[in-house]
Amino acid sequence: MKCECGKNAIEKIGNRYYCKECYSKRYLSLVERSIRRYGILKRGERVLAAVSGGKDSVAMIAALKELEDKLGIKIEALHINLGIGEYSRKSEEVCRELCDNLGISLHVVNLSEYGFTISDVRRKACSVCGNAKRYIMNRFAREQGFDVVATGHCAEDIVANVLKNLYSGNFEWSEKLLPRIEGYFKFVSKAKPLYEIGEKENLLFVLSRRLPFLPEECPKAPDPKWKELVYVIEKRIPGFKRGVLRSLVKRERVEGELKSCKICGEPTSTEVCQFCRNVKKFGKVRKIPL
Amino acid sequence: MKCECGKNAIEKIGNRYYCKECYSKRYLSLVERSIRRYGILKRGERVLAAVSGGKDSVAMIAALKELEDKLGIKIEALHINLGIGEYSRKSEEVCRELCDNLGISLHVVNLSEYGFTISDVRRKACSVCGNAKRYIMNRFAREQGFDVVATGHCAEDIVANVLKNLYSGNFEWSEKLLPRIEGYFKFVSKAKPLYEIGEKENLLFVLSRRLPFLPEECPKAPDPKWKELVYVIEKRIPGFKRGVLRSLVKRERVEGELKSCKICGEPTSTEVCQFCRNVKKFGKVRKIPL
Repeated sequence: MKCECGKNAIEKIGNRYYCKECYSKRYLSLVERSIRRYGILKRGERVLAAVSGGKDSVAMIAALKELEDKLGIKIEALHINLGIGEYSRKSEEVCRELCDNLGISLHVVNLSEYGFTISDVRRKACSVCGNAKRYIMNRFAREQGFDVVATGHCAEDIVANVLKNLYSGNFEWSEKLLPRIEGYFKFVSKAKPLYEIGEKENLLFVLSRRLPFLPEECPKAPDPKWKELVYVIEKRIPGFKRGVLRSLVKRERVEGELKSCKICGEPTSTEVCQFCRNVKKFGKVRKIPL
Repeated sequence: MKCECGKNAIEKIGNRYYCKECYSKRYLSLVERSIRRYGILKRGERVLAAVSGGKDSVAMIAALKELEDKLGIKIEALHINLGIGEYSRKSEEVCRELCDNLGISLHVVNLSEYGFTISDVRRKACSVCGNAKRYIMNRFAREQGFDVVATGHCAEDIVANVLKNLYSGNFEWSEKLLPRIEGYFKFVSKAKPLYEIGEKENLLFVLSRRLPFLPEECPKAPDPKWKELVYVIEKRIPGFKRGVLRSLVKRERVEGELKSCKICGEPTSTEVCQFCRNVKKFGKVRKIPL
Protein backbone atom coordinates (compact mmCIF):
# COMPACT_ATOMS: atom_id res chain seq x y z
CA MET A 1 0.00 0.00 0.00
CA LYS A 2 1.02 3.59 -0.58
CA CYS A 3 1.23 6.52 1.78
CA GLU A 4 -0.64 9.71 0.85
CA CYS A 5 2.71 11.14 -0.25
CA GLY A 6 3.15 8.33 -2.76
CA LYS A 7 5.92 6.39 -1.00
CA ASN A 8 5.60 2.79 0.23
CA ALA A 9 3.62 2.51 3.45
CA ILE A 10 5.02 0.79 6.56
CA GLU A 11 2.02 1.14 8.87
CA LYS A 12 -1.73 1.62 8.86
CA ILE A 13 -3.22 3.80 11.58
CA GLY A 14 -6.97 4.16 11.56
CA ASN A 15 -7.78 4.24 7.86
CA ARG A 16 -4.57 5.89 6.75
CA TYR A 17 -1.36 4.33 5.51
CA TYR A 18 1.96 5.90 6.44
CA CYS A 19 5.42 5.76 4.94
CA LYS A 20 8.49 6.05 7.21
CA GLU A 21 8.79 9.80 6.77
CA CYS A 22 5.12 10.61 7.25
CA TYR A 23 4.91 8.26 10.25
CA SER A 24 7.87 10.02 11.87
CA LYS A 25 6.25 13.41 11.34
CA ARG A 26 3.04 12.17 12.89
CA TYR A 27 4.98 10.71 15.84
CA LEU A 28 6.83 13.98 16.45
CA SER A 29 3.61 15.96 16.36
CA LEU A 30 2.02 13.55 18.87
CA VAL A 31 4.98 13.95 21.23
CA GLU A 32 4.94 17.72 20.81
CA ARG A 33 1.19 17.94 21.43
CA SER A 34 1.50 15.79 24.53
CA ILE A 35 4.40 17.90 25.88
CA ARG A 36 2.36 21.07 25.36
CA ARG A 37 -0.91 19.67 26.68
CA TYR A 38 0.55 18.64 30.01
CA GLY A 39 3.28 21.26 30.24
CA ILE A 40 5.83 18.45 30.41
CA LEU A 41 8.77 20.63 29.37
CA LYS A 42 8.99 24.40 29.52
CA ARG A 43 10.57 26.95 27.22
CA GLY A 44 14.13 27.82 28.23
CA GLU A 45 14.72 24.64 30.20
CA ARG A 46 17.99 22.74 30.22
CA VAL A 47 16.82 19.13 29.97
CA LEU A 48 18.80 16.09 31.06
CA ALA A 49 17.37 13.18 29.05
CA ALA A 50 18.06 9.78 30.59
CA VAL A 51 18.87 7.17 27.98
CA SER A 52 19.22 3.44 28.58
CA GLY A 53 19.61 2.37 24.95
CA GLY A 54 16.19 0.69 24.79
CA LYS A 55 13.59 1.66 22.17
CA ASP A 56 11.63 4.03 24.43
CA SER A 57 14.45 6.22 25.71
CA VAL A 58 16.09 6.23 22.27
CA ALA A 59 12.83 7.42 20.70
CA MET A 60 12.43 10.07 23.39
CA ILE A 61 15.88 11.51 23.05
CA ALA A 62 15.71 11.62 19.24
CA ALA A 63 12.27 13.24 19.34
CA LEU A 64 13.38 15.83 21.91
CA LYS A 65 16.44 16.66 19.83
CA GLU A 66 14.26 17.25 16.76
CA LEU A 67 11.82 19.35 18.78
CA GLU A 68 14.56 21.31 20.58
CA ASP A 69 14.07 24.58 18.67
CA LYS A 70 10.29 24.35 18.48
CA LEU A 71 10.02 23.80 22.23
CA GLY A 72 12.82 26.20 23.08
CA ILE A 73 14.73 23.65 25.19
CA LYS A 74 18.35 22.48 25.32
CA ILE A 75 18.92 18.78 25.76
CA GLU A 76 21.88 16.72 26.91
CA ALA A 77 21.86 13.00 27.64
CA LEU A 78 22.76 10.91 30.67
CA HIS A 79 23.50 7.22 30.49
CA ILE A 80 24.00 5.24 33.67
CA ASN A 81 26.15 2.15 33.26
CA LEU A 82 24.69 -0.32 35.74
CA GLY A 83 27.43 -2.92 35.39
CA ILE A 84 25.24 -5.76 34.17
CA GLY A 85 27.97 -7.46 32.15
CA GLU A 86 27.67 -7.59 28.38
CA TYR A 87 24.20 -6.03 28.47
CA SER A 88 25.50 -2.83 30.05
CA ARG A 89 28.51 -2.71 27.75
CA LYS A 90 26.26 -2.90 24.67
CA SER A 91 23.83 -0.39 26.15
CA GLU A 92 26.54 2.20 26.64
CA GLU A 93 27.85 1.59 23.13
CA VAL A 94 24.40 2.16 21.63
CA CYS A 95 23.97 5.38 23.59
CA ARG A 96 27.37 6.68 22.48
CA GLU A 97 26.60 5.89 18.86
CA LEU A 98 23.14 7.46 19.08
CA CYS A 99 24.31 10.69 20.71
CA ASP A 100 27.22 10.92 18.30
CA ASN A 101 24.85 10.59 15.33
CA LEU A 102 22.38 13.10 16.70
CA GLY A 103 24.95 15.59 18.00
CA ILE A 104 23.85 15.36 21.62
CA SER A 105 26.40 15.65 24.41
CA LEU A 106 26.32 12.50 26.45
CA HIS A 107 27.29 12.13 30.11
CA VAL A 108 28.01 8.65 31.40
CA VAL A 109 27.97 7.74 35.08
CA ASN A 110 29.13 4.30 36.14
CA LEU A 111 27.26 2.88 39.10
CA SER A 112 30.57 1.15 39.97
CA GLU A 113 31.90 4.59 40.98
CA TYR A 114 29.70 4.15 44.03
CA GLY A 115 31.35 0.85 44.89
CA PHE A 116 28.80 -1.65 43.59
CA THR A 117 27.03 -2.75 40.43
CA ILE A 118 23.65 -4.37 39.80
CA SER A 119 25.51 -7.66 39.23
CA ASP A 120 26.39 -7.61 42.94
CA VAL A 121 22.69 -7.62 43.83
CA ARG A 122 21.18 -11.06 44.21
CA ARG A 123 17.64 -10.29 45.35
CA LYS A 124 15.24 -7.50 44.32
CA ALA A 125 17.72 -6.29 41.74
CA CYS A 126 15.04 -4.25 39.94
CA SER A 127 14.18 -2.28 43.00
CA VAL A 128 17.85 -1.58 43.82
CA CYS A 129 18.44 -0.65 40.18
CA GLY A 130 15.43 1.68 40.04
CA ASN A 131 16.56 3.39 43.21
CA ALA A 132 20.12 3.80 41.93
CA LYS A 133 18.96 5.27 38.63
CA ARG A 134 16.60 7.78 40.28
CA TYR A 135 19.32 8.73 42.77
CA ILE A 136 22.03 9.27 40.19
CA MET A 137 19.74 11.06 37.71
CA ASN A 138 18.55 13.48 40.36
CA ARG A 139 21.92 14.11 41.92
CA PHE A 140 23.72 14.50 38.61
CA ALA A 141 21.05 16.86 37.24
CA ARG A 142 21.06 19.02 40.36
CA GLU A 143 24.82 19.19 40.64
CA GLN A 144 25.20 20.02 36.95
CA GLY A 145 22.50 22.67 36.99
CA PHE A 146 19.84 21.01 34.81
CA ASP A 147 16.24 22.18 35.22
CA VAL A 148 14.55 18.87 34.63
CA VAL A 149 15.24 15.15 34.11
CA ALA A 150 13.30 13.52 31.24
CA THR A 151 12.75 9.76 31.23
CA GLY A 152 11.41 7.45 28.54
CA HIS A 153 8.45 5.99 30.42
CA CYS A 154 5.77 5.10 27.88
CA ALA A 155 2.00 4.84 28.27
CA GLU A 156 2.05 1.10 29.03
CA ASP A 157 4.73 1.54 31.71
CA ILE A 158 2.59 4.08 33.49
CA VAL A 159 -0.70 2.20 33.32
CA ALA A 160 1.03 -1.03 34.39
CA ASN A 161 2.40 0.83 37.40
CA VAL A 162 -1.00 2.24 38.28
CA LEU A 163 -2.46 -1.28 38.33
CA LYS A 164 0.46 -2.67 40.29
CA ASN A 165 0.26 0.11 42.84
CA LEU A 166 -3.49 -0.27 43.09
CA TYR A 167 -2.89 -3.92 43.93
CA SER A 168 -0.08 -3.38 46.38
CA GLY A 169 -1.48 -0.33 48.12
CA ASN A 170 1.41 1.89 47.14
CA PHE A 171 -0.29 5.15 46.33
CA GLU A 172 2.77 7.21 45.60
CA TRP A 173 1.75 6.83 41.97
CA SER A 174 -0.60 9.75 42.23
CA GLU A 175 2.59 11.79 42.27
CA LYS A 176 5.35 9.78 40.74
CA LEU A 177 3.42 8.72 37.65
CA LEU A 178 2.35 12.16 36.52
CA PRO A 179 3.73 13.52 33.22
CA ARG A 180 5.52 16.33 35.07
CA ILE A 181 6.56 16.60 38.70
CA GLU A 182 7.85 19.97 39.83
CA GLY A 183 11.08 19.97 41.80
CA TYR A 184 11.05 20.55 45.55
CA PHE A 185 13.58 20.26 48.34
CA LYS A 186 16.59 18.63 46.69
CA PHE A 187 14.54 17.03 43.93
CA VAL A 188 14.96 18.31 40.40
CA SER A 189 11.76 18.41 38.30
CA LYS A 190 10.94 15.16 36.48
CA ALA A 191 9.31 14.88 33.06
CA LYS A 192 7.85 12.03 31.01
CA PRO A 193 7.60 13.29 27.42
CA LEU A 194 6.25 9.90 26.21
CA TYR A 195 3.48 9.84 28.84
CA GLU A 196 0.76 9.29 26.24
CA ILE A 197 2.81 7.43 23.64
CA GLY A 198 2.60 3.65 23.29
CA GLU A 199 5.71 1.47 23.15
CA LYS A 200 4.83 0.22 19.68
CA GLU A 201 4.73 3.81 18.43
CA ASN A 202 8.18 4.37 19.93
CA LEU A 203 9.57 1.27 18.28
CA LEU A 204 8.17 2.24 14.89
CA PHE A 205 9.72 5.70 15.17
CA VAL A 206 13.10 4.21 16.08
CA LEU A 207 12.87 1.83 13.12
CA SER A 208 11.65 4.54 10.75
CA ARG A 209 14.55 6.76 11.64
CA ARG A 210 17.01 3.82 11.65
CA LEU A 211 18.21 4.84 15.09
CA PRO A 212 20.61 2.53 16.93
CA PHE A 213 18.96 0.80 19.90
CA LEU A 214 19.36 -2.31 21.98
CA PRO A 215 16.43 -4.63 21.22
CA GLU A 216 17.16 -7.12 23.98
CA GLU A 217 15.56 -7.00 27.40
CA CYS A 218 17.68 -6.51 30.49
CA PRO A 219 18.65 -10.02 31.69
CA LYS A 220 17.29 -9.03 35.11
CA ALA A 221 14.04 -7.59 33.71
CA PRO A 222 11.02 -8.01 35.98
CA ASP A 223 7.94 -10.14 35.47
CA PRO A 224 6.13 -8.65 32.48
CA LYS A 225 2.73 -9.70 33.83
CA TRP A 226 1.59 -6.16 34.63
CA LYS A 227 2.41 -4.82 31.19
CA GLU A 228 0.75 -7.85 29.59
CA LEU A 229 -2.30 -7.11 31.70
CA VAL A 230 -2.48 -3.64 30.18
CA TYR A 231 -2.77 -5.20 26.71
CA VAL A 232 -5.40 -7.69 27.91
CA ILE A 233 -7.53 -4.93 29.44
CA GLU A 234 -7.12 -2.60 26.46
CA LYS A 235 -8.40 -5.34 24.19
CA ARG A 236 -11.54 -5.79 26.29
CA ILE A 237 -12.04 -2.09 27.07
CA PRO A 238 -10.65 -0.07 24.18
CA GLY A 239 -9.49 3.31 25.42
CA PHE A 240 -8.72 2.07 28.94
CA LYS A 241 -5.06 3.12 28.72
CA ARG A 242 -5.87 6.61 27.55
CA GLY A 243 -8.67 6.91 30.11
CA VAL A 244 -6.36 6.03 32.99
CA LEU A 245 -3.64 8.41 31.79
CA ARG A 246 -6.11 11.27 31.45
CA SER A 247 -7.70 10.58 34.79
CA LEU A 248 -4.36 10.51 36.61
CA VAL A 249 -3.85 14.05 35.42
CA LYS A 250 -7.24 15.45 36.27
CA ARG A 251 -6.98 13.92 39.64
CA GLU A 252 -7.54 16.96 41.78
CA ARG A 253 -10.59 16.11 43.75
CA VAL A 254 -13.65 18.11 42.81
CA GLU A 255 -15.39 18.25 46.10
CA GLY A 256 -17.06 21.59 46.45
CA GLU A 257 -19.12 22.88 49.28
CA LEU A 258 -22.27 21.10 50.29
CA LYS A 259 -25.55 22.89 50.64
CA SER A 260 -29.21 21.98 51.07
CA CYS A 261 -31.26 21.45 47.93
CA LYS A 262 -33.53 24.45 47.30
CA ILE A 263 -36.44 22.14 46.60
CA CYS A 264 -36.22 19.26 49.05
CA GLY A 265 -33.51 20.29 51.51
CA GLU A 266 -31.41 17.13 50.97
CA PRO A 267 -27.64 17.60 50.71
CA THR A 268 -26.22 18.54 47.32
CA SER A 269 -23.33 20.41 45.75
CA THR A 270 -25.65 22.21 43.31
CA GLU A 271 -28.63 24.53 43.90
CA VAL A 272 -31.14 21.79 43.14
CA CYS A 273 -30.12 18.20 43.83
CA GLN A 274 -29.80 15.60 41.07
CA PHE A 275 -32.76 13.66 42.38
CA CYS A 276 -35.09 16.66 42.24
CA ARG A 277 -33.84 17.37 38.74
CA ASN A 278 -34.69 13.80 37.81
CA VAL A 279 -38.09 14.09 39.46
CA LYS A 280 -38.77 17.20 37.41
CA LYS A 281 -37.50 15.60 34.22
CA PHE A 282 -39.22 12.25 34.45
CA GLY A 283 -42.11 12.82 36.85
CA LYS A 284 -45.72 13.34 36.03
CA VAL A 285 -47.16 14.19 39.42
CA ARG A 286 -45.16 15.09 42.50
CA LYS A 287 -46.73 13.12 45.28
CA ILE A 288 -44.34 13.57 48.20
CA PRO A 289 -44.84 16.82 50.12
CA LEU A 290 -41.54 18.61 50.55
CA MET B 1 -17.13 -36.02 49.15
CA LYS B 2 -17.82 -35.54 52.82
CA CYS B 3 -17.49 -32.50 55.03
CA GLU B 4 -15.39 -32.81 58.21
CA CYS B 5 -18.66 -33.13 60.13
CA GLY B 6 -19.62 -36.19 58.11
CA LYS B 7 -22.41 -34.65 56.02
CA ASN B 8 -22.38 -34.41 52.21
CA ALA B 9 -20.15 -31.65 50.93
CA ILE B 10 -21.42 -28.92 48.58
CA GLU B 11 -18.19 -26.99 48.06
CA LYS B 12 -14.43 -27.33 48.24
CA ILE B 13 -12.48 -24.34 49.50
CA GLY B 14 -8.71 -24.69 49.53
CA ASN B 15 -8.27 -28.33 50.54
CA ARG B 16 -11.39 -28.59 52.66
CA TYR B 17 -14.83 -29.79 51.73
CA TYR B 18 -17.85 -28.11 53.28
CA CYS B 19 -21.44 -29.19 53.80
CA LYS B 20 -24.21 -26.57 53.75
CA GLU B 21 -24.18 -26.01 57.49
CA CYS B 22 -20.40 -25.79 57.85
CA TYR B 23 -20.17 -23.55 54.78
CA SER B 24 -22.76 -21.19 56.28
CA LYS B 25 -20.83 -21.03 59.55
CA ARG B 26 -17.64 -20.23 57.69
CA TYR B 27 -19.43 -17.55 55.67
CA LEU B 28 -20.85 -15.91 58.79
CA SER B 29 -17.47 -15.88 60.47
CA LEU B 30 -15.91 -14.26 57.37
CA VAL B 31 -18.58 -11.56 57.37
CA GLU B 32 -18.18 -11.01 61.09
CA ARG B 33 -14.38 -10.79 60.82
CA SER B 34 -14.63 -8.33 58.00
CA ILE B 35 -17.14 -6.16 59.89
CA ARG B 36 -14.84 -6.09 62.91
CA ARG B 37 -11.61 -5.58 60.95
CA TYR B 38 -12.85 -2.47 59.20
CA GLY B 39 -15.26 -1.25 61.88
CA ILE B 40 -18.07 -1.51 59.34
CA LEU B 41 -20.84 -1.61 61.94
CA LYS B 42 -20.64 -0.49 65.56
CA ARG B 43 -22.16 -1.87 68.74
CA GLY B 44 -25.47 -0.24 69.58
CA GLU B 45 -26.23 0.92 66.07
CA ARG B 46 -29.66 0.82 64.50
CA VAL B 47 -28.94 -0.45 60.99
CA LEU B 48 -31.13 0.05 57.93
CA ALA B 49 -30.20 -2.78 55.55
CA ALA B 50 -31.09 -2.07 51.93
CA VAL B 51 -32.43 -5.15 50.17
CA SER B 52 -33.13 -5.47 46.45
CA GLY B 53 -33.96 -9.17 46.40
CA GLY B 54 -30.77 -10.16 44.56
CA LYS B 55 -28.34 -12.74 45.99
CA ASP B 56 -25.93 -10.20 47.51
CA SER B 57 -28.37 -8.08 49.50
CA VAL B 58 -30.31 -11.19 50.54
CA ALA B 59 -27.09 -12.79 51.83
CA MET B 60 -26.17 -9.58 53.65
CA ILE B 61 -29.46 -9.14 55.41
CA ALA B 62 -29.64 -12.78 56.48
CA ALA B 63 -26.04 -12.68 57.75
CA LEU B 64 -26.63 -9.44 59.66
CA LYS B 65 -29.76 -10.87 61.23
CA GLU B 66 -27.83 -13.92 62.44
CA LEU B 67 -24.99 -11.74 63.74
CA GLU B 68 -27.35 -9.19 65.38
CA ASP B 69 -26.69 -10.24 68.99
CA LYS B 70 -22.98 -10.93 68.52
CA LEU B 71 -22.41 -7.51 66.98
CA GLY B 72 -24.86 -5.74 69.28
CA ILE B 73 -26.81 -4.14 66.44
CA LYS B 74 -30.51 -3.88 65.57
CA ILE B 75 -31.44 -4.33 61.94
CA GLU B 76 -34.49 -3.40 59.87
CA ALA B 77 -34.81 -3.64 56.12
CA LEU B 78 -35.62 -1.15 53.37
CA HIS B 79 -36.78 -2.17 49.93
CA ILE B 80 -37.18 0.44 47.23
CA ASN B 81 -39.66 -0.47 44.53
CA LEU B 82 -38.27 1.13 41.39
CA GLY B 83 -41.28 0.46 39.19
CA ILE B 84 -39.51 -1.69 36.61
CA GLY B 85 -42.60 -3.75 35.71
CA GLU B 86 -42.67 -7.42 36.56
CA TYR B 87 -39.06 -7.35 37.76
CA SER B 88 -39.85 -4.87 40.53
CA ARG B 89 -43.04 -6.70 41.47
CA LYS B 90 -41.12 -9.96 41.93
CA SER B 91 -38.29 -8.20 43.77
CA GLU B 92 -40.67 -6.76 46.34
CA GLU B 93 -42.37 -10.13 46.77
CA VAL B 94 -39.02 -11.84 47.43
CA CYS B 95 -38.07 -9.19 50.00
CA ARG B 96 -41.40 -9.52 51.80
CA GLU B 97 -41.07 -13.31 51.94
CA LEU B 98 -37.45 -13.09 53.11
CA CYS B 99 -38.10 -10.58 55.88
CA ASP B 100 -41.18 -12.50 56.97
CA ASN B 101 -39.15 -15.70 57.24
CA LEU B 102 -36.31 -14.04 59.12
CA GLY B 103 -38.48 -11.88 61.39
CA ILE B 104 -37.07 -8.59 60.11
CA SER B 105 -39.32 -5.53 59.86
CA LEU B 106 -39.37 -4.37 56.29
CA HIS B 107 -40.05 -0.86 55.05
CA VAL B 108 -41.01 -0.40 51.42
CA VAL B 109 -40.70 2.91 49.58
CA ASN B 110 -42.12 3.19 46.06
CA LEU B 111 -40.15 5.46 43.80
CA SER B 112 -43.53 6.27 42.18
CA GLU B 113 -44.37 8.23 45.33
CA TYR B 114 -41.95 10.80 43.93
CA GLY B 115 -43.89 11.01 40.66
CA PHE B 116 -41.72 8.84 38.40
CA THR B 117 -40.39 5.32 38.02
CA ILE B 118 -37.29 3.91 36.35
CA SER B 119 -39.53 2.74 33.49
CA ASP B 120 -40.05 6.43 32.64
CA VAL B 121 -36.31 6.84 32.09
CA ARG B 122 -35.14 6.15 28.56
CA ARG B 123 -31.44 7.03 28.73
CA LYS B 124 -28.85 6.46 31.48
CA ALA B 125 -31.43 4.57 33.52
CA CYS B 126 -28.73 3.04 35.75
CA SER B 127 -27.39 6.37 36.77
CA VAL B 128 -30.87 7.77 37.52
CA CYS B 129 -31.70 4.59 39.42
CA GLY B 130 -28.49 4.69 41.45
CA ASN B 131 -29.12 8.29 42.36
CA ALA B 132 -32.73 7.56 43.36
CA LYS B 133 -31.72 4.62 45.56
CA ARG B 134 -28.98 6.59 47.34
CA TYR B 135 -31.32 9.52 47.83
CA ILE B 136 -34.18 7.49 49.24
CA MET B 137 -31.96 5.29 51.43
CA ASN B 138 -30.28 8.30 52.96
CA ARG B 139 -33.40 10.36 53.43
CA PHE B 140 -35.44 7.49 54.83
CA ALA B 141 -32.68 6.45 57.23
CA ARG B 142 -32.16 9.97 58.50
CA GLU B 143 -35.84 10.73 58.89
CA GLN B 144 -36.47 7.45 60.68
CA GLY B 145 -33.50 7.83 63.00
CA PHE B 146 -31.26 5.01 61.77
CA ASP B 147 -27.52 5.28 62.51
CA VAL B 148 -26.28 3.66 59.34
CA VAL B 149 -27.41 2.31 55.96
CA ALA B 150 -25.93 -1.08 54.99
CA THR B 151 -25.80 -2.10 51.33
CA GLY B 152 -24.97 -5.43 49.71
CA HIS B 153 -22.01 -4.34 47.57
CA CYS B 154 -19.71 -7.33 47.17
CA ALA B 155 -15.96 -7.46 46.51
CA GLU B 156 -16.35 -7.67 42.72
CA ASP B 157 -18.71 -4.67 42.65
CA ILE B 158 -16.16 -2.57 44.45
CA VAL B 159 -13.12 -3.60 42.42
CA ALA B 160 -15.09 -3.19 39.17
CA ASN B 161 -15.98 0.33 40.28
CA VAL B 162 -12.37 1.14 41.11
CA LEU B 163 -11.31 0.12 37.59
CA LYS B 164 -14.18 1.99 35.99
CA ASN B 165 -13.43 5.13 37.96
CA LEU B 166 -9.76 4.83 37.20
CA TYR B 167 -10.70 4.77 33.54
CA SER B 168 -13.20 7.59 33.66
CA GLY B 169 -11.31 9.87 36.00
CA ASN B 170 -13.97 9.83 38.66
CA PHE B 171 -11.99 9.68 41.85
CA GLU B 172 -14.85 9.90 44.29
CA TRP B 173 -14.23 6.20 44.84
CA SER B 174 -11.56 6.91 47.38
CA GLU B 175 -14.49 7.84 49.57
CA LYS B 176 -17.58 6.17 48.28
CA LEU B 177 -16.08 2.71 47.89
CA LEU B 178 -14.74 2.36 51.40
CA PRO B 179 -16.25 -0.30 53.68
CA ARG B 180 -17.55 2.39 56.05
CA ILE B 181 -18.21 6.07 55.44
CA GLU B 182 -19.04 8.15 58.50
CA GLY B 183 -22.05 10.42 58.25
CA TYR B 184 -21.62 14.16 57.82
CA PHE B 185 -23.88 17.07 57.03
CA LYS B 186 -27.20 15.43 56.12
CA PHE B 187 -25.61 12.14 55.14
CA VAL B 188 -26.20 9.12 57.32
CA SER B 189 -23.22 6.74 57.72
CA LYS B 190 -22.92 4.09 55.00
CA ALA B 191 -21.65 0.54 55.49
CA LYS B 192 -20.71 -2.32 53.16
CA PRO B 193 -20.68 -5.48 55.30
CA LEU B 194 -19.79 -7.64 52.28
CA TYR B 195 -16.82 -5.47 51.28
CA GLU B 196 -14.45 -8.42 51.23
CA ILE B 197 -16.91 -11.15 50.28
CA GLY B 198 -17.16 -12.47 46.72
CA GLU B 199 -20.49 -12.78 44.91
CA LYS B 200 -20.07 -16.54 44.55
CA GLU B 201 -19.70 -16.84 48.32
CA ASN B 202 -22.91 -14.84 48.74
CA LEU B 203 -24.77 -17.06 46.31
CA LEU B 204 -23.60 -20.22 48.03
CA PHE B 205 -24.74 -18.88 51.40
CA VAL B 206 -28.15 -17.98 49.98
CA LEU B 207 -28.46 -21.46 48.48
CA SER B 208 -27.18 -23.19 51.61
CA ARG B 209 -29.73 -21.43 53.74
CA ARG B 210 -32.47 -21.88 51.12
CA LEU B 211 -33.24 -18.17 51.28
CA PRO B 212 -35.68 -16.71 48.75
CA PHE B 213 -33.96 -14.50 46.18
CA LEU B 214 -34.50 -13.23 42.65
CA PRO B 215 -31.90 -14.88 40.40
CA GLU B 216 -32.64 -12.76 37.35
CA GLU B 217 -30.71 -9.63 36.44
CA CYS B 218 -32.47 -6.30 36.28
CA PRO B 219 -33.69 -5.91 32.66
CA LYS B 220 -31.93 -2.54 32.62
CA ALA B 221 -28.70 -3.92 34.12
CA PRO B 222 -25.55 -2.20 32.89
CA ASP B 223 -22.82 -3.62 30.70
CA PRO B 224 -21.17 -6.35 32.78
CA LYS B 225 -17.79 -5.74 31.13
CA TRP B 226 -16.20 -4.19 34.21
CA LYS B 227 -17.18 -7.06 36.48
CA GLU B 228 -16.02 -9.56 33.86
CA LEU B 229 -12.72 -7.72 33.74
CA VAL B 230 -12.29 -8.31 37.47
CA TYR B 231 -12.49 -12.07 36.86
CA VAL B 232 -10.07 -11.85 33.93
CA ILE B 233 -7.51 -9.93 35.99
CA GLU B 234 -7.93 -12.15 39.05
CA LYS B 235 -7.17 -15.18 36.90
CA ARG B 236 -3.91 -13.62 35.64
CA ILE B 237 -2.92 -11.99 38.93
CA PRO B 238 -4.34 -14.11 41.77
CA GLY B 239 -4.98 -11.93 44.79
CA PHE B 240 -5.59 -8.77 42.73
CA LYS B 241 -9.11 -8.29 44.12
CA ARG B 242 -8.00 -8.61 47.72
CA GLY B 243 -4.98 -6.40 47.07
CA VAL B 244 -7.12 -3.60 45.69
CA LEU B 245 -9.65 -3.84 48.53
CA ARG B 246 -6.91 -3.74 51.15
CA SER B 247 -5.11 -0.89 49.47
CA LEU B 248 -8.27 1.25 49.23
CA VAL B 249 -8.48 1.04 52.99
CA LYS B 250 -4.86 1.79 53.81
CA ARG B 251 -5.00 4.67 51.44
CA GLU B 252 -3.90 7.42 53.75
CA ARG B 253 -0.78 8.71 52.12
CA VAL B 254 2.36 7.93 54.04
CA GLU B 255 4.35 10.95 53.13
CA GLY B 256 6.49 11.90 56.06
CA GLU B 257 8.90 14.73 56.37
CA LEU B 258 11.90 14.92 54.07
CA LYS B 259 15.39 15.37 55.40
CA SER B 260 18.92 15.17 54.08
CA CYS B 261 20.65 11.79 54.19
CA LYS B 262 23.19 11.69 57.02
CA ILE B 263 25.75 10.13 54.73
CA CYS B 264 25.40 11.79 51.33
CA GLY B 265 23.02 14.70 51.92
CA GLU B 266 20.54 13.63 49.23
CA PRO B 267 16.83 13.90 50.10
CA THR B 268 15.26 11.01 52.00
CA SER B 269 12.51 10.27 54.49
CA THR B 270 14.82 8.13 56.64
CA GLU B 271 18.07 8.96 58.44
CA VAL B 272 20.19 7.27 55.78
CA CYS B 273 18.82 7.14 52.22
CA GLN B 274 17.97 3.87 50.49
CA PHE B 275 20.79 4.32 48.00
CA CYS B 276 23.44 4.70 50.71
CA ARG B 277 22.00 1.65 52.44
CA ASN B 278 22.37 -0.24 49.16
CA VAL B 279 25.90 1.07 48.69
CA LYS B 280 26.76 -0.21 52.15
CA LYS B 281 25.08 -3.55 51.55
CA PHE B 282 26.42 -4.34 48.09
CA GLY B 283 29.53 -2.20 47.76
CA LYS B 284 33.10 -3.26 48.15
CA VAL B 285 34.91 0.05 47.94
CA ARG B 286 33.28 3.46 48.20
CA LYS B 287 34.82 5.47 45.42
CA ILE B 288 32.73 8.65 45.33
CA PRO B 289 33.76 11.23 47.90
CA LEU B 290 30.72 12.44 49.81
